[in-house]
Amino acid sequence: MKTTIIVDKKNDQKTEKKVMTAQKNVTPKAADTKKTEKKFVTNITALLKNFPQWYTDIVLKTELCDYGPVKGTMVIRPYGFALWENIKNALDKQLKEREYQNAYFPMLIPSSFIEKEKEHVAGFAPELATVTHVGNEALPEKLYVRPTSETIIGNMLSKWLQSYKELPMKLNQWCNVVRWEKTTRPFLRTSEFLWHEAHAVFADAKSAKKNALDDLHLYEKFMREYLALPVLIGQKSEKEKFAGAEITYGVEAMMKDGKSLQVGTSHYLGQNFSKSFNIKFTDDQKTSRFAYTTSVGTSTRLIGAIVMTHGDDRGLVLPPRVAPIQVIIVPVAQHKPGVLNVAENIKRTLSNLHYRVAIDDSDNTPGWKFNQWEMKGVPIRIEVGPRDIENNECQISRRDTLVKTTVKLNRIESYVADLLENIQHTMLVNAEQNRDKHIKRAKNFTELKRAINAGNFVIAPWCNCTECEEAIKTETNGVSTRVMPLDSVVEKDATCIKCGKPAKVEIIFAKAY
Amino acid sequence: MKTTIIVDKKNDQKTEKKVMTAQKNVTPKAADTKKTEKKFVTNITALLKNFPQWYTDIVLKTELCDYGPVKGTMVIRPYGFALWENIKNALDKQLKEREYQNAYFPMLIPSSFIEKEKEHVAGFAPELATVTHVGNEALPEKLYVRPTSETIIGNMLSKWLQSYKELPMKLNQWCNVVRWEKTTRPFLRTSEFLWHEAHAVFADAKSAKKNALDDLHLYEKFMREYLALPVLIGQKSEKEKFAGAEITYGVEAMMKDGKSLQVGTSHYLGQNFSKSFNIKFTDDQKTSRFAYTTSVGTSTRLIGAIVMTHGDDRGLVLPPRVAPIQVIIVPVAQHKPGVLNVAENIKRTLSNLHYRVAIDDSDNTPGWKFNQWEMKGVPIRIEVGPRDIENNECQISRRDTLVKTTVKLNRIESYVADLLENIQHTMLVNAEQNRDKHIKRAKNFTELKRAINAGNFVIAPWCNCTECEEAIKTETNGVSTRVMPLDSVVEKDATCIKCGKPAKVEIIFAKAY
Repeated sequence: MKTTIIVDKKNDQKTEKKVMTAQKNVTPKAADTKKTEKKFVTNITALLKNFPQWYTDIVLKTELCDYGPVKGTMVIRPYGFALWENIKNALDKQLKEREYQNAYFPMLIPSSFIEKEKEHVAGFAPELATVTHVGNEALPEKLYVRPTSETIIGNMLSKWLQSYKELPMKLNQWCNVVRWEKTTRPFLRTSEFLWHEAHAVFADAKSAKKNALDDLHLYEKFMREYLALPVLIGQKSEKEKFAGAEITYGVEAMMKDGKSLQVGTSHYLGQNFSKSFNIKFTDDQKTSRFAYTTSVGTSTRLIGAIVMTHGDDRGLVLPPRVAPIQVIIVPVAQHKPGVLNVAENIKRTLSNLHYRVAIDDSDNTPGWKFNQWEMKGVPIRIEVGPRDIENNECQISRRDTLVKTTVKLNRIESYVADLLENIQHTMLVNAEQNRDKHIKRAKNFTELKRAINAGNFVIAPWCNCTECEEAIKTETNGVSTRVMPLDSVVEKDATCIKCGKPAKVEIIFAKAY
Repeated sequence: MKTTIIVDKKNDQKTEKKVMTAQKNVTPKAADTKKTEKKFVTNITALLKNFPQWYTDIVLKTELCDYGPVKGTMVIRPYGFALWENIKNALDKQLKEREYQNAYFPMLIPSSFIEKEKEHVAGFAPELATVTHVGNEALPEKLYVRPTSETIIGNMLSKWLQSYKELPMKLNQWCNVVRWEKTTRPFLRTSEFLWHEAHAVFADAKSAKKNALDDLHLYEKFMREYLALPVLIGQKSEKEKFAGAEITYGVEAMMKDGKSLQVGTSHYLGQNFSKSFNIKFTDDQKTSRFAYTTSVGTSTRLIGAIVMTHGDDRGLVLPPRVAPIQVIIVPVAQHKPGVLNVAENIKRTLSNLHYRVAIDDSDNTPGWKFNQWEMKGVPIRIEVGPRDIENNECQISRRDTLVKTTVKLNRIESYVADLLENIQHTMLVNAEQNRDKHIKRAKNFTELKRAINAGNFVIAPWCNCTECEEAIKTETNGVSTRVMPLDSVVEKDATCIKCGKPAKVEIIFAKAY
C-alpha cells in the first residue's frame, strides 16, 4: 500500500448512498430475506449493553482466537494470526530501520539469573512458570520460562561486548513469553503471549535515554499509521514502572468503554542490568566501564486494542494496512454466466497490485456473505452480479461507514487504492475524535471520579508521590495513573488532585485493562 | 532473486583468474601483509583434520550462534538468525501456496494429552521439560513444554471440525520446541530449537497419504533450490519412524564427513491421533467419522546442514538465495577521493535491485576484510580502489570457487545477477557430485562396513525387519537405516545384507547425526 493518506474525491462521494442491504438478514422484513436458506446470526452482544461480553463474542466468533486447554491460555487462529503477521512484518521492518538486529535467546532462564536483579525478581516472581524436571529427573537448578529476557540477554552481552567501537549494540527478539496471570482475557492478558522485545546497549546515559524515547516515538507513529490507534505516550509513575527500570515510558490506547490499554512500554534501564550482569566495555581511554541499557516491547495485545478501538455491533473493523483480507469479492447470482469470471478478473487485477483479495464463492447467500465479512471486519466489499456486469459496474462498500458506491469496472483499481487510504485515515480520525472527546481536565477529586465513571480519561496535576496514587486507586475502585504526557507543563499554582500539596507533574488517570 | 538458474557467459570466464590475495594474510610472505596492522586469523581447525571441531569453530567464529547458559541451549546470533529468517520466509511462502494457514497454539501441554497416544508418549517422555510450579504454587496438573504439537492441535481440531466441507484443514506453526537431549551440538541437536510444524486433516486415507508425500517433495525441492542441498528422500523403517505415525518419510542430507543429517520428516498419522483426540467430522451422508491426519516439520538444523555441506577450511560458503549478505563491497584505499563514493553507488544500484548488499568501510585492512567476509561465506565480494575507478572497473570474487574477475562498472548489475545464479547452481552441482561419489552399493555386510567407514552412504537390499537393523547398528558402532528411496526396486533374487533371507526393500545405510 502507498503510505500517503488521501481523501476520496468529491465526485466519488456524490454516488455514495447509505446501504441497507447489509442489515437485511438481521431485519426479517427486508426483501432479500426470503431467498436466504441459512440465516446468518452474529449473536454478538451489543457493545453498549455489555462491553466485556461484546469483546469476547467478537474475538471468538470472528475466529481470531479460541481458549486453550490450560486455564489462561489462548490459541491464535489463522485469521488472528494473519493479522498478527501483518502487524509483526510492518513493525519488524521499522525496527530494522532503527538498526535493531533480530536474534534468538533461550526460553529457559536459570533461576539464579532472575534473582540477580532485586526489583526484577520482586516484580515477576509470582508469575514465573518453573521447570523443575526433565522426564523423571530433577534438574540441578530450576529454570524459569522467560517472562521477559533482560537477564539472559544481559548474561550474553557481558560475554560478547568488548570495545566502545561495538556500541550501540541493538538486538531484537520475536518470541513467546509466559507470565502466569490470575485473571485472563484473550489477547489482553494470557499466561503465554507473543511479543517482540528489543534490547540496546550504549556507552553513556544520554544516548540510552534518547534511544528509549526514540523507540517510544516509533511505537506512537507505527500504531497511528498502521493500526489507526491514536495512542497517548508519556512517562510512567514510580509505582507503574517496569521492575528493574530507571524510567519507563508507556503507550496507552483508549478503548471504546473509556478504559485504557497499555499497548507498549519503553524502558531506560540505566546501569541496573549492566551492574547485575557485568555488561562492561573498554572505552577509548582503555578504561573498563559499565554500559547503559534500554528495552522496549509490544505484544499480541495490539489485536485486542484494534478490536476495542474500532469494532462495532456488527463485529470487527480492521485497519486496511494490517487487515488479513483487504477486499472481499462477493459474486451475486454466481451461477449465471460470466459472474464468476468477472469476479476472478477483479481479483487478479487487485492481487497484481499487491492487495490482499479473496472471493467468497461458497454456496451461502449473498446476504449471509455480506454479514459474515462485515463481522470479520474486511475493509472493502465488492459485489458484482449480472445487472452490474451489463452496466460495466460493480458495487463497492466500505466497512467503516457502511457506505456503498457504484463504480465502473475500469475504475476499480484507482477507486480501491483511494478507498483503502481513505478508510485508514477515517478510522484514525474517528478514534482520535473519540479520544479527545473523552479526555477531561479535573480540578478536584470529585470531578476526577465523576469524569472517569462517565467513561473518560482525566488529566490532572499530581504531587508525584505513591501514597496519593494508591489512595486514589483504593477510593475509586481501581483508577490508576497512566502516563505523564511528555510535553505537559504544570501550572504555577497547581495543586495535587488528591492531597492538595503543590503539584509536580500532570498525569493521566484512567481505569485500565 | 530470479528463480532461473543460468550459467556464466563464456566471455566472462575468459577474464577470470585464481585469486591469491585472499590467502595473503594467512601466508605471511605475501606482499600485502606488511600493511596489515591487525592480522586476521580464522583459527578454524582444518576440515580434514577434525571435522567436528571444524564445525564448532565455524558456527562460533562466524557468529552464527553461541552456547546458552543452560547446558544444551544455544543463542542464535544476528548473522545466524538472518540466515534463518531467509530460510523461513522462503519456506513459509511455499507452505502458504500449499494452502497451509499459520496459527499459534499454546506451548504448555497438559501431561494427560501427551499420555493419550501411547507410542507418542513412549517416544518423548524422557525428553520432556516439565512445569510443575508457578511462583510457589504447585499446578493442579503438570504441564509439558511442547516437544511437538500433534496432541494440543488434535485437541483443538476435535473442537473446531464439524463438516467434511471444511476438509482438508491445513495449519502451520512456526515456534520453539524443547526436547532435552543428552548430547547436544549447536543447530544439530539443542534442548530448545526453532522449527515449523504443519498439520493437516483429511476425510480419507488416500488424500492424507498423498499430502504427506507432497510435503516431502516440497521439502526436497525447497532444499535443492534454496539451500543447494541435494537431499535424499524416502520412507523410514519401522524403528526410525515418528512416535505415533503410520508412515514416516525422511529427508536426509549428506555432510562432508559422509554422515547423514535428517533435515526434515513428513508423517502420515493415519487415524492414530484422531482416535486419541476425537477428531471427527460429519460426512455427506451425515455419518460421523474419524479423520486422517498428517504432520511435517523442519528446523534450525538446516543451518547445520548448510555449514556441513558447503563449508571449507576458510569458513562458511552460503547459498546466495538465503545468504544474509549476498554482496560485500570492500573499498581499497578508501581514504582516497572518490573511492567510498563509487562503493556507495554500487551499493545503491544493487540494493535497488533488491540484492542484500553491505559495504565494509571499517578501519581494518582490505586483506583482513577479504578473510573476514570469506569466513562469513558471503557469495560475492566486490573490491574497488583508485586504479579500478580510473579504469572504470572493479574486481569481483566469488566465494565458492575463489575466482576473481575484472568487471566494467557499467556491467556490474548483469554480472552480479548472473554470478549469483551461477554460484547457487554450482554449489548444488558440487554437492550433488560429492553425494553421488559417496553412495555405494554393497553386496555383503563386509562391503557395507568398509564403504561406510570410508565415509560413504550404502544402498543395499534388506529384509525389512528390526532385528537385522539393530544388529547392524550394534556391530558397526552406530550405522542406521536412513530411508528407502521411493523409486527403488528390489532385484528378484536379492537377499538381505545382514541375514541373507530374501530382501523386501532397498534402503540407505549411514552413520547419522
